[in-house]
Amino acid sequence: MLLGSIEAGGTKFVCAVGDETYHVKQQIQYPTTTPEETLQKAIDFFKQFSDLQAISIASFGPIEIRRDAEMYGYITDTPKAGWSQTNFLGLLKAAFDLPIYWTTDVNGSAYGEYVLAAQTGHRLNALTYYTIGTGVGAGTVLGGTFVGTLGHPEVGHVRLKRHPDDLAFKGICPYHGDCLEGLVAGPTFEARTGREGQDIPLTDHVWDIMAYYVAQAALQTTLHIRPQRIVFGGGVVSEGFLRKVRHEFAALMNDYQDVGQLADYMTMPLAKNNGSATIGNFALAYREVKSEHQN
Amino acid sequence: MLLGSIEAGGTKFVCAVGDETYHVKQQIQYPTTTPEETLQKAIDFFKQFSDLQAISIASFGPIEIRRDAEMYGYITDTPKAGWSQTNFLGLLKAAFDLPIYWTTDVNGSAYGEYVLAAQTGHRLNALTYYTIGTGVGAGTVLGGTFVGTLGHPEVGHVRLKRHPDDLAFKGICPYHGDCLEGLVAGPTFEARTGREGQDIPLTDHVWDIMAYYVAQAALQTTLHIRPQRIVFGGGVVSEGFLRKVRHEFAALMNDYQDVGQLADYMTMPLAKNNGSATIGNFALAYREVKSEHQN
Repeated sequence: MLLGSIEAGGTKFVCAVGDETYHVKQQIQYPTTTPEETLQKAIDFFKQFSDLQAISIASFGPIEIRRDAEMYGYITDTPKAGWSQTNFLGLLKAAFDLPIYWTTDVNGSAYGEYVLAAQTGHRLNALTYYTIGTGVGAGTVLGGTFVGTLGHPEVGHVRLKRHPDDLAFKGICPYHGDCLEGLVAGPTFEARTGREGQDIPLTDHVWDIMAYYVAQAALQTTLHIRPQRIVFGGGVVSEGFLRKVRHEFAALMNDYQDVGQLADYMTMPLAKNNGSATIGNFALAYREVKSEHQN
Repeated sequence: MLLGSIEAGGTKFVCAVGDETYHVKQQIQYPTTTPEETLQKAIDFFKQFSDLQAISIASFGPIEIRRDAEMYGYITDTPKAGWSQTNFLGLLKAAFDLPIYWTTDVNGSAYGEYVLAAQTGHRLNALTYYTIGTGVGAGTVLGGTFVGTLGHPEVGHVRLKRHPDDLAFKGICPYHGDCLEGLVAGPTFEARTGREGQDIPLTDHVWDIMAYYVAQAALQTTLHIRPQRIVFGGGVVSEGFLRKVRHEFAALMNDYQDVGQLADYMTMPLAKNNGSATIGNFALAYREVKSEHQN
């Protein structure tokens, strides 16, 4: 069965076709430019595959995910220039008479990690996926569905206890200054140090500050939702960084609640090469096909 | 149909019998002393009603809610003296051959507010209930079930951005110092000011500080879970205080996400006289009876 995936990022798009075992058969990626040009490239790619059964889109946002909302399927008020009020789903639906699933980039990734965990024998009822990159967000799969009723989660904009060695930094979020995203998104390295994160060794104290904040986000997820696993993806994250995050998390939790082995609880993605969202999309597209057949 | 409710608080127990329309027929309350004495009083109360169909318990915690756990039904490591490792559910099950539902106090209250909202025509998919009293906690109903897989939420222990006029206050949580509970539980008034909260007028600046922290907790709930309503109960909460919380919430959100009218989104309980948990228990006990009949 041929299934389509669009991972729509603010920087680049990844379009892929694959099968119900989540194997990629063909894939393209290209920079995100104007909505017209960027979405047309996706349409042109999928038009090559006449036996496509369904498509799933995991998009940057904010997006409208409430099916009964007038703007369902739109990217809404996004800081990404030119993309506000883009009828993403509508344009795809006009081009393809297929079931098309629509969710956020981090929901797609969370679903990918959820199905990969099941493949490795860990059938998790609840899993949260964080991306820490150009932006910060999270998605949670709970009982096979996504958490978020009044809209999708926007975890990047919670507030945190400031690190004592970081009080002078104002944060970079245009809406909130020192919210989570304003304190730990990739561009904060340059804002704090004048250097890019990839050029700063993990031994630099700025990484301890970053870990303190990301650990607080993980603590929030733990105490609000109690998932069985929190996966961290995005350009800022590495196994070395996660070791620091786990250390800070343990100090913050102070043995108050047990989450099992931290190395199993807070993990890198199972999907290689940032492939979580594509795998999640294949699984969600497959779910759409199955549900069509049931109706 | 006669249904039983135990609202088990760290200070007092409220035991009630009522019906499937959530009306209390008889109720007693008494101080929480030793587990033996306190639970025996509950058992003696319910033994009067030979036609009781089910009981639901909404308990202070932490408690074990995972049905497959060895300690399911226990109060676990609680700061409440004498109550750690109490087999609460087991003692009740030994006394009554009835379906008995077991959850947290705030989950019980959340469920009560969920069924009352439905009675007033608001069928909410997701609702969170906060208590801000001697302790601080929250429970969330999502799609008819409670959020929490690795255990129940423990929202009282998240960290917050400190208010600039409150930096000298260390917080009162024995585990975490200035976590949410350490900053806004009822006893913080005396710790900060030497006076009890009920003696401090809402015009006092300490209430602005409290509102800033509670608004951050509501923002976390909003951005992690996106419920349709957040209900606030507990001794610290009043409509006047909630007005301050909504004001701080709006400033923190800064129009980033729409949650509708704040007066409808962040509310006092629909149940009068702290009755949310009792109503929730009746509804949960009724659900147990119905599910028994289906099996």
